[in-house]
Amino acid sequence: MNETGRPQDDVLSNPRADRVRKVAQLAGRPARLKRREFLAEGPQAVREALGLHQRRIAAGEPGIVYEVYASESCLDRHPDLEALAEGTTAYLATDEVLAAMADTVNPQGVLAVCGFLDTVLEQVLDAGPRLIAVLSQVRDPGNAGTVLRAADAAGADAVILTSSSVDIYNPKAVRSTAGSLFHLPVVLGAEVEEIVAQCKERGIGVLAADGDGELNLDRLQDENSARRLGAPAPESGYALENPTAWLFGNEAQGLSGEELALANHRVAVPVYGAAESLNLGTAATVCLYASARAQQSQQGSGTESA
Amino acid sequence: MNETGRPQDDVLSNPRADRVRKVAQLAGRPARLKRREFLAEGPQAVREALGLHQRRIAAGEPGIVYEVYASESCLDRHPDLEALAEGTTAYLATDEVLAAMADTVNPQGVLAVCGFLDTVLEQVLDAGPRLIAVLSQVRDPGNAGTVLRAADAAGADAVILTSSSVDIYNPKAVRSTAGSLFHLPVVLGAEVEEIVAQCKERGIGVLAADGDGELNLDRLQDENSARRLGAPAPESGYALENPTAWLFGNEAQGLSGEELALANHRVAVPVYGAAESLNLGTAATVCLYASARAQQSQQGSGTESA
Repeated sequence: MNETGRPQDDVLSNPRADRVRKVAQLAGRPARLKRREFLAEGPQAVREALGLHQRRIAAGEPGIVYEVYASESCLDRHPDLEALAEGTTAYLATDEVLAAMADTVNPQGVLAVCGFLDTVLEQVLDAGPRLIAVLSQVRDPGNAGTVLRAADAAGADAVILTSSSVDIYNPKAVRSTAGSLFHLPVVLGAEVEEIVAQCKERGIGVLAADGDGELNLDRLQDENSARRLGAPAPESGYALENPTAWLFGNEAQGLSGEELALANHRVAVPVYGAAESLNLGTAATVCLYASARAQQSQQGSGTESA
Repeated sequence: MNETGRPQDDVLSNPRADRVRKVAQLAGRPARLKRREFLAEGPQAVREALGLHQRRIAAGEPGIVYEVYASESCLDRHPDLEALAEGTTAYLATDEVLAAMADTVNPQGVLAVCGFLDTVLEQVLDAGPRLIAVLSQVRDPGNAGTVLRAADAAGADAVILTSSSVDIYNPKAVRSTAGSLFHLPVVLGAEVEEIVAQCKERGIGVLAADGDGELNLDRLQDENSARRLGAPAPESGYALENPTAWLFGNEAQGLSGEELALANHRVAVPVYGAAESLNLGTAATVCLYASARAQQSQQGSGTESA
C-alpha cells in the first residue's frame, strides 16, 4: 500500500487462492456471523464504507473496513477511492478474482471486507431519536435494504431489525441499501416487545403500519398541516411531529396481532385506487416521509425543507 | 368446463406436451408480441384477470382471459376462482405441468393466458385524467411493476410506458404489479415528446421527478395545505391539486436532459438524511401520493380520505 492508497505490486490473479475463497464465504451467513464481517460490493458501497471508516479513524474509533480489493481499471474510473482507501489494507486484483470473491456477477471492479456495524438498542434510544424504522419478520433482503435506504433518505435516526428479519449483511440487502447501511445506526436481533417498551419509556410514540389501521396517514398529515397553520382541525389522536418509531411487518402477512396490539396506534396508508395494498418498501417510504415532513415543518418555517 | 367453472376430466399431466410448451413460450418477448398474449401467474393475478374479464364480458366487450390452468388443490384452496372462471376455457393440470408452463418456480397452482390490455394515448387523455405516471427508460421489470402498483394505490388514472422502457407483460413485471395491471389503463410505446405535447394541450401539468429539481415536493405539499386552509403561503409555481402527469426516468440515470426540458417543472423529493437518493419505486410512490393527497383533499372536506 503506498501513500495514495494504490497498492503497487502483487495483482491477485488466482481465483482459486485461499484468500479469494475466504472472501467469497462472506456471501453465506455462517461465515459472516463467525467472523463478524460482511461484503460491500461496487464503487458506491465501497466509497460509503471507506468514508465511514475514515470518519471513525479521525474520531479515534476503530475502523470498519478490513480489506479492499480493486481492479486497476476500476481505480482509474474512480480515482477518489484511492485517497479514501489510505491506511487500509488494499490489494489490486484481476476481474476474474473479483468475480470469484463477489456475490454479484459483476462487482464493478471493487469490493471491501467490512466489520459488522450494528449497535445496541439502548444506545440508539438514549441518543434522543426523532424517527426510527423497525422491521419485524421482513424476509426479502431487497425489501429490507430498500426500507433502510428510504429511512436514510427520510432522515431517520436508526433502523432496527428484529431477530425474525432477514440478515441486513446479506449481500443483496447491502446492495439494496445503496450505501445507506453506512449512514445511520442499525440495531439487529432485538424483539418487538422490548423495542416498544423501551420506546414508550422514553416518550417515543409507536405506530404500526397496517392496511386495516384505525388511523389514516393522510388525515394525520392534514391535521399536522392545520396545527402548524393555526387552523381548526379534528384530532385523530396522534401528532405526526412527535418522536416516532414505525413498525413494519412481513411482506405478505404484515405485523402479527400481538405486535399490532403493542403499538400506540395502527396507521393505514390510504389506498385511493383498486390496489389491495402497497408493497412493503413503498408503504414504509410513505410512512417515514410523512413523519419526516411533519417533523421538519415543525423545526423550520413551515415551508422550509431539504 | 362445467357450470361452476371447474373442468371435469382430462387433467393435463404431460409437461412435454405442445400446449405446455406454447404457454411456456410466453415467458419470452417474441412469443408475447407475436400472439399478443401474456401470462398471469398465481391466485391473486389470475383472480384480478378473471375479474376484469367478467366485467368486460358483462359490458359486452371482448374478454381478456383466453385460457386458465389450475391444479385441483389450488381450486380447493381458492374456490372463488371457479366461479370467476365461468365461461372461460379452463383446464385442470398437474403441478408438474403448471411448473413447466410458468416463469416462476412456484406458480401456486394456477395461471392464465391473457390478451394484451394496453390502450392508446388519446383514449386515456381524452377521458379527463387527474393523475398519470409516465415511465421512460425504466429497465427493471420489478421496478416498472412496483410503480404501476403504487400508481394504482394512489388512484392514478393511467400508466404510460415509453418504447424505451421494459415490457410490462414480462412475467416479473406482471408479478410485481400484484394484480394492479388489471386495474387501470396502460399505454405502451408512446414517446415522451408526444405524451408531453398531448398533456399540455389538454391542460395537464407535466412534472419531471428529478433529484436536482428546482421545486421541492414537500414545499409544494405545504403550499397545497395552506391554500386549502386559507392560510398565506408562498407559491413555488405549481399547484399539486392540478391534473398532473409525472415523468419518471431510468433507475440509474434518471430522465435525460431533453426529457427534463419538456416538463413544466422538475420536482425533487427532498432527502433529509445522507442517502444520495431514493430508488425509483419509492420516489415515484412519494410523488404520486403527494398528488393524490392534494387532489383528494381538494375534492373532500380537507381531512377526508380513503
